[in-house]
Amino acid sequence: MDKINHAIASIKPLDKGAMEEAKIRQDSLTKPQGALGQLESLPIQVAGIKRNPKPRIAQKVIFTLTADHGVAQEGVSAYPSEVTPQMVYNFLRGGAGINVLSRLVGARVVVADLGVASVLERHSELKDKKVAMGTQNMAKGPAMSRKEAIRSIEAGIELVEEELTRGIDILGTGDMGIGNTTPSSAITAVIIGADLATVTGRGTGLDDEGLKRKVNIIQRALDVNRPDPKDPIDVLSKVGGFEIGGIAGVILAGAKNRIPVVIDGFVSGAAALIATSLSSQVKPYLIASHQSAEIGHKIILEYLGLKPLLNLDLRLGEGTGAALGIFLVEASLKLLEEMATFAEAGVSGKI
Amino acid sequence: MDKINHAIASIKPLDKGAMEEAKIRQDSLTKPQGALGQLESLPIQVAGIKRNPKPRIAQKVIFTLTADHGVAQEGVSAYPSEVTPQMVYNFLRGGAGINVLSRLVGARVVVADLGVASVLERHSELKDKKVAMGTQNMAKGPAMSRKEAIRSIEAGIELVEEELTRGIDILGTGDMGIGNTTPSSAITAVIIGADLATVTGRGTGLDDEGLKRKVNIIQRALDVNRPDPKDPIDVLSKVGGFEIGGIAGVILAGAKNRIPVVIDGFVSGAAALIATSLSSQVKPYLIASHQSAEIGHKIILEYLGLKPLLNLDLRLGEGTGAALGIFLVEASLKLLEEMATFAEAGVSGKI
Repeated sequence: MDKINHAIASIKPLDKGAMEEAKIRQDSLTKPQGALGQLESLPIQVAGIKRNPKPRIAQKVIFTLTADHGVAQEGVSAYPSEVTPQMVYNFLRGGAGINVLSRLVGARVVVADLGVASVLERHSELKDKKVAMGTQNMAKGPAMSRKEAIRSIEAGIELVEEELTRGIDILGTGDMGIGNTTPSSAITAVIIGADLATVTGRGTGLDDEGLKRKVNIIQRALDVNRPDPKDPIDVLSKVGGFEIGGIAGVILAGAKNRIPVVIDGFVSGAAALIATSLSSQVKPYLIASHQSAEIGHKIILEYLGLKPLLNLDLRLGEGTGAALGIFLVEASLKLLEEMATFAEAGVSGKI
Repeated sequence: MDKINHAIASIKPLDKGAMEEAKIRQDSLTKPQGALGQLESLPIQVAGIKRNPKPRIAQKVIFTLTADHGVAQEGVSAYPSEVTPQMVYNFLRGGAGINVLSRLVGARVVVADLGVASVLERHSELKDKKVAMGTQNMAKGPAMSRKEAIRSIEAGIELVEEELTRGIDILGTGDMGIGNTTPSSAITAVIIGADLATVTGRGTGLDDEGLKRKVNIIQRALDVNRPDPKDPIDVLSKVGGFEIGGIAGVILAGAKNRIPVVIDGFVSGAAALIATSLSSQVKPYLIASHQSAEIGHKIILEYLGLKPLLNLDLRLGEGTGAALGIFLVEASLKLLEEMATFAEAGVSGKI
């Protein structure tokens, strides 16, 4: 827990001076004030995060964390668990959606095994942070021990810190794990106190009957485990997942290291609930890339006070929305840096 | 009118075979079907437009059309008309928002004078398509003659056809003209039959009193001119603008030449109403880049049956939203082309 406590203690508020300076420049650019909408507030937030009124992002990193879920055996996913390791290899070969989008936006993808339920072939690009061979079935007891929950968060922190030597100007979170919208719904219901039906969706494509079963299974998991909403580590251990804990760690480490954290969809959102419950100081470091088609995500974003940049009905995970969000952050920073001011361009102001 | 009629007669329906082939590939990629949301339907549309099941876009062009508006003398804008030519020079020097975003997404910007109310310095990158020195004040009579309206649309068609020699795989529309949300609201109210108050917004930043004045001025223009909703050329001539007619021409020429047309915000939306009223065959060629903060835009998009890709509260125009939209189209095409299939990646399908 030391690593987590140290990260939390190191998170500082945003730099108001840099934000003020960025805002002054923003308002001097050749456009009506506010005409760039969210692309005006973004660079001010990033200026505050990076303590730099004209921040640039060159090193972009997507952390795609993978793990398996014991609860998948209850039939809560449209796909079998064997897809998790298969997709890990797809990531490593560059054939998945996140690979395509990361190439397009110039981001590196860090693929990590937080708890896939099979022994993966070693690969120079695969980070081995396996906590266990998948979680236990949360419908029958805790998904993991408290120690494992802490370990998964610490593994996420390590992933970021290890990658810092190569440089990280901005990071995006991503996930892959068959069954992982189930723990995400459970976490959301517990931490926000939301009705389970309003935060449980079809995941990769459940039919009506499958969705009903999923809600029932999650309800059983909550009844069996009674997670304490005030204790995010308890919630994670009872009804969470290793990649979810890992992403919470990535988020904490991002905030600690003054890196803008672009969160992906529903599973990353659940991880953000864990991270912000551990420390509310994390919130100003978060940028919501998109609003997922998964119904619970909207509730998470509203709870966190985040306005998503995109609403394309994505529900793939992997960090795909985050990669697109990073592009929009980059666009907003280029606008702040490269647009001419009214004075430079000799353009008249308001009447 | 020959050029317009010829363009309209040349517009063909999308290629269903190419769309079908693209859809089959889309559904074989390593993701749950539908998980990429709008990024799945986009490449199928583009496949149909380009008659190619695996289309690529290399040559991207934003057409930024500029003009002045006689109605600006009624105080309907927060900025003086002199800003229009000043911004043209800003475009040509590369200092405007559209220049920054076009550089980022790798698009060329074609800047054209459709009717700026001053003599602009010649510039190798400025297309001279001036119809007149700004429109007349539509609050007192027609904004332009019927002949000028036709000329403005034809000038837009010419801009695209002249640029074809350099190649256009996708195009975006853009506008700049102080006062031009006023004719755009008028066009929207007439063609859609919407209540004026619901389609009239603050433009570059009017206060409450300014907004009230704007609505009154537009109402006066409609009373004085009585444009015929069934005759888009009449609507354009009575209460339109030269850049709006020009953009309508760009849209027609895009559809004629099987080029995906990414429309920008409110002013481009009003031009799309003119273009689709001239020929409903244009519709399948349109991609709505974003939903503007300008209130009438949502009504236009709903009327045209278009779902915007972005909702960032942009209201700058120039083609800025279109540039971002082009990036998302490119992302969707790369996903279709580069993602591995289930068979290639050895990933299991649904249970």
